[in-house]
Amino acid sequence: MWIAWTSLSSREDAEGIARQTVEQGLAACVQLDGPIRSTYRWQGQLEQTEEWRLCFKLLPEQAAALEALVHRLHPYEVPEWLCVEAAQVSEKYLSWARSSG
Amino acid sequence: MWIAWTSLSSREDAEGIARQTVEQGLAACVQLDGPIRSTYRWQGQLEQTEEWRLCFKLLPEQAAALEALVHRLHPYEVPEWLCVEAAQVSEKYLSWARSSG
Amino acid sequence: MWIAWTSLSSREDAEGIARQTVEQGLAACVQLDGPIRSTYRWQGQLEQTEEWRLCFKLLPEQAAALEALVHRLHPYEVPEWLCVEAAQVSEKYLSWARSSG
Repeated sequence: MWIAWTSLSSREDAEGIARQTVEQGLAACVQLDGPIRSTYRWQGQLEQTEEWRLCFKLLPEQAAALEALVHRLHPYEVPEWLCVEAAQVSEKYLSWARSSG
Repeated sequence: MWIAWTSLSSREDAEGIARQTVEQGLAACVQLDGPIRSTYRWQGQLEQTEEWRLCFKLLPEQAAALEALVHRLHPYEVPEWLCVEAAQVSEKYLSWARSSG
Repeated sequence: MWIAWTSLSSREDAEGIARQTVEQGLAACVQLDGPIRSTYRWQGQLEQTEEWRLCFKLLPEQAAALEALVHRLHPYEVPEWLCVEAAQVSEKYLSWARSSG
């Protein structure tokens, strides 16, 4: 399985992405946490923004469609989108992810 | 080293798992955060639950026993359990993890 | 890209590390969350501490200098420092990370 993350400034938008990605069967589980404080550079300026973070648990075969849907729903010009591959997943959790996709 | 995650609805249960896994030498450090909001499908229905998340830092050789203990203590039928392998760990942190196992 | 984590007991110190690492071009983005509750063993005793967590998004070529700066600024004797390699990053996000380094 893979774990993917994005973040955005509106909690309501984040909840919408969580709901729609699970409804469309593109992630087994999406977790929302925040507020977090993000520090980054945008157009040469140091920015500090309050954001909400989404963490997706998905099967590798869902990754391309999930990335596309998140980018369609995400309000940012350049959304954060990183996926990490799990080295180990419990058998039960993997079976559940496969059955809920 | 590996990083593993699970989540559960009771903060008290989460604290118990954190304490017992460290006491039994199965993780170097366990971090609890939350509440988070989880969205997933369970028996065909979309569910949204408030949960607490545990993040374990462990040595690969602790993984099997840690997974077994977490599953014994975890109240869910299908607990989340994903492990990711670190590409890089600082030397000091790795030494400390080895000495505290 | 890589994702790296550390944690520390002072939110103010964490904000300082976030700002300085981005200012010096050693991470594309740093996210601060907390408070979290950390459980670990230190000199034989079980400890439970409130901490703040930093999550860095970086290019692999920034990793060595970022690790060195974080360790210079971090108040702990043995700071947490783990990096994970992303299996997939969106093209736009990667371009942005390269341009903001």
